[in-house]
Amino acid sequence: MPLSPDQLAEIDQHSQASAPTRRATVPALEAMLYRPMPVLDHGFVRVVDYMGDDAAIVQAARVSYGRGTRKVSEDAGLIRYLMRHRHSTPFEMCEIKYHVKLPIFVARQWIRHRMANVNEYSARYSILDREFYIPEPEHLAAQSQNNRQGRGAVLEGEAAREVLDLLRDDAARCHDHYALMLGDEDADQPGDQPPAETARRGYGLARELARMNLTLNTYTQWYWKSDLHNLLSFLSLRLDSHAQFEIRVYAEAMLETVRAWVPTACAAFEDYRLGAFTLSSSMLDVVRRLLAGEALEQKASGLSRREWDELMQALGRS
Amino acid sequence: MPLSPDQLAEIDQHSQASAPTRRATVPALEAMLYRPMPVLDHGFVRVVDYMGDDAAIVQAARVSYGRGTRKVSEDAGLIRYLMRHRHSTPFEMCEIKYHVKLPIFVARQWIRHRMANVNEYSARYSILDREFYIPEPEHLAAQSQNNRQGRGAVLEGEAAREVLDLLRDDAARCHDHYALMLGDEDADQPGDQPPAETARRGYGLARELARMNLTLNTYTQWYWKSDLHNLLSFLSLRLDSHAQFEIRVYAEAMLETVRAWVPTACAAFEDYRLGAFTLSSSMLDVVRRLLAGEALEQKASGLSRREWDELMQALGRS
Amino acid sequence: MPLSPDQLAEIDQHSQASAPTRRATVPALEAMLYRPMPVLDHGFVRVVDYMGDDAAIVQAARVSYGRGTRKVSEDAGLIRYLMRHRHSTPFEMCEIKYHVKLPIFVARQWIRHRMANVNEYSARYSILDREFYIPEPEHLAAQSQNNRQGRGAVLEGEAAREVLDLLRDDAARCHDHYALMLGDEDADQPGDQPPAETARRGYGLARELARMNLTLNTYTQWYWKSDLHNLLSFLSLRLDSHAQFEIRVYAEAMLETVRAWVPTACAAFEDYRLGAFTLSSSMLDVVRRLLAGEALEQKASGLSRREWDELMQALGRS
Amino acid sequence: MPLSPDQLAEIDQHSQASAPTRRATVPALEAMLYRPMPVLDHGFVRVVDYMGDDAAIVQAARVSYGRGTRKVSEDAGLIRYLMRHRHSTPFEMCEIKYHVKLPIFVARQWIRHRMANVNEYSARYSILDREFYIPEPEHLAAQSQNNRQGRGAVLEGEAAREVLDLLRDDAARCHDHYALMLGDEDADQPGDQPPAETARRGYGLARELARMNLTLNTYTQWYWKSDLHNLLSFLSLRLDSHAQFEIRVYAEAMLETVRAWVPTACAAFEDYRLGAFTLSSSMLDVVRRLLAGEALEQKASGLSRREWDELMQALGRS
Repeated sequence: MPLSPDQLAEIDQHSQASAPTRRATVPALEAMLYRPMPVLDHGFVRVVDYMGDDAAIVQAARVSYGRGTRKVSEDAGLIRYLMRHRHSTPFEMCEIKYHVKLPIFVARQWIRHRMANVNEYSARYSILDREFYIPEPEHLAAQSQNNRQGRGAVLEGEAAREVLDLLRDDAARCHDHYALMLGDEDADQPGDQPPAETARRGYGLARELARMNLTLNTYTQWYWKSDLHNLLSFLSLRLDSHAQFEIRVYAEAMLETVRAWVPTACAAFEDYRLGAFTLSSSMLDVVRRLLAGEALEQKASGLSRREWDELMQALGRS
Repeated sequence: MPLSPDQLAEIDQHSQASAPTRRATVPALEAMLYRPMPVLDHGFVRVVDYMGDDAAIVQAARVSYGRGTRKVSEDAGLIRYLMRHRHSTPFEMCEIKYHVKLPIFVARQWIRHRMANVNEYSARYSILDREFYIPEPEHLAAQSQNNRQGRGAVLEGEAAREVLDLLRDDAARCHDHYALMLGDEDADQPGDQPPAETARRGYGLARELARMNLTLNTYTQWYWKSDLHNLLSFLSLRLDSHAQFEIRVYAEAMLETVRAWVPTACAAFEDYRLGAFTLSSSMLDVVRRLLAGEALEQKASGLSRREWDELMQALGRS
Repeated sequence: MPLSPDQLAEIDQHSQASAPTRRATVPALEAMLYRPMPVLDHGFVRVVDYMGDDAAIVQAARVSYGRGTRKVSEDAGLIRYLMRHRHSTPFEMCEIKYHVKLPIFVARQWIRHRMANVNEYSARYSILDREFYIPEPEHLAAQSQNNRQGRGAVLEGEAAREVLDLLRDDAARCHDHYALMLGDEDADQPGDQPPAETARRGYGLARELARMNLTLNTYTQWYWKSDLHNLLSFLSLRLDSHAQFEIRVYAEAMLETVRAWVPTACAAFEDYRLGAFTLSSSMLDVVRRLLAGEALEQKASGLSRREWDELMQALGRS
Repeated sequence: MPLSPDQLAEIDQHSQASAPTRRATVPALEAMLYRPMPVLDHGFVRVVDYMGDDAAIVQAARVSYGRGTRKVSEDAGLIRYLMRHRHSTPFEMCEIKYHVKLPIFVARQWIRHRMANVNEYSARYSILDREFYIPEPEHLAAQSQNNRQGRGAVLEGEAAREVLDLLRDDAARCHDHYALMLGDEDADQPGDQPPAETARRGYGLARELARMNLTLNTYTQWYWKSDLHNLLSFLSLRLDSHAQFEIRVYAEAMLETVRAWVPTACAAFEDYRLGAFTLSSSMLDVVRRLLAGEALEQKASGLSRREWDELMQALGRS
């Protein structure tokens, strides 16, 4: 996670500055503020602002003030109730803003969550750094044989080296040619040596065109702002074991920030959403019959093989 | 604006409490925080939280840090550029939360702005106070003759008194019967005297049913949270001279808070949006011909009578 | 559900007109098109347009054409898979538009579902009919004693009659005075007899003001358009046994239209969403222990009394 | 725009099939249905479904039926009024669905319009075709000198050839290596010849990983569905002369479909939005002074140089 000198100076400056506020303040999150949490080889997530806390959720649910003096146990009970019954609006009263550095192919998945505010680094206006995501060898997985969008065993030895070389070389060459097309003095041009004359000036191609030569593992950055309700929806999808590893690691870093920020809501989320399993009405029927002592098999259950397996795994019976 | 003792105590408490934060802080808005600004006869608006400032807009637009040291004039220029060209995402990086008390018929207009987060006082769960909006005599306007949704001259004398009496009596009677149907000890029951037995216990009707007896000028309350971009859209519609007076006064109070919060963005908003006039391509053609010295009349202009009048008024020629 | 002669004529006209289209068409829904389904005493729901069908969901999920010839069983399996794993975007590819007539207090709940398009009858511009929702005696429920927002036993005898009289009289008087304030010839004025002079012309109050005198059980109308994903979210909340009866009956009528429109998606919805129960991680642990034969009681379960009861009820053990 | 045999067969099939419907139907759009309109070198846009027409906008605005028999001129007047005063909800009552094939860097701009429904071809699940966008020589523009995100003069001769070669070679090599990493029999592998053994089986890398090696000019596809209001917002931004050429050509093709679909709304859009110019309050002041005959220069105008230039250009004075 190579931060530029400018970025480091900015973080230092914010770390020291402090002002009094009468807004709700969360010391545990203040301590994390501005500091980048490293993710993948060059990426990071850092919290740059927030609004609200656990009490703001309770306050919105009660739409009544002057009741803030109730015992914490009652507030926790209310938050758990709201989470269990999927009430969404009180969780929308908290807001958080992140600065994220991430590979473009991850950004393309992430942006599908529409209920957020985003400002991305513009490659029409600026020049993307020469940084690419290259997986660690232990994450270089083969295509899963039984799951069309999953991963199987890890590639090893020669094959792994060859794949990593391809990824590295192609990304580097594409960025070198990007820089050459631009011919901008600002761009890094550490790779290929173009003919002397061109090297000095490049081709001067428009940035909005040159960027098309970059590979999808090139890093980009954005500010991403969301309310807590939509953030939890994002996390519940992206922390799932079926989510792609390269986005899951961002979700994991963000979950840590949520734990510091709204510990009660986060605990309820982990119990009722992350660790939960939804029984369909057919599954509910199967569980009832099992509890009644019936020796039920998949064939007689009314469930498909796939649903039966999912249920047995959830019940710890597979 | 009768605040309950609980509410006043809560405001006092927040007014004194203060904590250090490393987040962006706006002293001018801090000074307004929590304090209700009276609107209409019993309503109010108060800011209860906020996130971001003018600099956060600039930061998002640049998606680059370490540039926070530029001169204010450059930042102002960028914010003005963004406003002029209707860039929306940088303004979405600021967020504000209000607590509002407002008549139900105003709430029904307001809620049509969907891009906000809302928690309203629930009349299924709680009991609405005995407070109704009754217009000041000078706002008791007749139906406009030339605008199907506008107001004309103010009603006067006897007629005005009679209308106000009808509004007052119907609202009071409906709330008295609401309280009687509920029979809840919590509810105010200052009006009708029901038969002794019922008076002690009322009918015990479900709250979710009894509320249907209330009139649309009964006050409700909500927390309403929005990003700056959507707030400005709300304000530009509701500050318009065609907006209903009873919602415009809320928008005016909120505009004051925006001025304190993001003074640069607010000034740009007032220049480029509030005071602006959009020329259609046909209108643009008319202005060019007028500038060329042509003595143009509506008939030859290609504009409808209505559009011609709107244009002449904007140009100060009517 | 008193339809105006204009409305009836319009429905007749559409019932006969037919044009060829190359779009996806669903005969079962075509048969319901335009025809109002009565709801409550004066309300209705009717489908006025739709786009897509079960196959459109499959097509979007595959984002591939030329595969439309697969067997129905495969398509059904894919739709069930999408529903089980809460994939939302393929269901967003279908769209439906309703015309609804409903009491204002129901409209106020309904509008909280923001992800829809709405055009409501405007009481700034037009005059609301003299129609109010008055509950059937069997729905005149007392406040629940153990659920702050629920209903208990039905009111009976004298008490019921008195409450219904209050509702009827207050709504009628408020509308009569509304009409009197307006003094518009278009408005029904069947009730109070105002002094002769005023009766002829009324007060001429602006419509946007006069409407505040109406009670919340007055009927309004709107066009409401939603994609299938958001419609199913709406239905799952409003078909729930905790939803207020007066909105649930609208949801039930709409569920019928969904069954006709996208039968496969609707069946999956009923199995995986309507009839489903979500086990939290603590509940999952309890079910595992019960299946292992443990004689578990609430106290030792780690669940609150409330959660334990909810679980036992779902498992058919209470 | 190479369509696969499957795609062509599917289009043929739909072109012939036709069913009766009682929904609003637009013959001019029916004639375009399913047929791909070529965009760029391999892309296309085609309408695959729609809902509503000009009359649906009017109907929603009136929220009243039985008035459909009014003269067309009145309907047109209402639609023009709605467009001029930026009423949005009636235009939301129409919906359209497109199937689009487009380069990834264009998709990344497009997806920023959040108020739409999207299903994109998944490169986690499937394999992307070996098709890249390579600009026509006349669109190979240099970076603008005075606009940081714009284009200047066209590159010519040797330089142009070299840049096109770089783009072509890098995209092809990256896709060849992508196919090699996958080792899937389905993937085209026309380029590099890997060592014999690997060629037969490739590396079997997970699809979700291999895709990161692709360049941003690789084509993807999606279904994209939007209501008319949001579609017009999209078009007004992307038809602008400052929009990147490669997305503007898609917007132009879509504008043609809107003209066929809702001709009245589209004409109003072109007059009031596309050809419009918004005067800020300062600009309005300048226009008034110019009309009064004042010989005003930029320095004395109160406008910045940039705003002055924009205004003079709009007024045809530059």
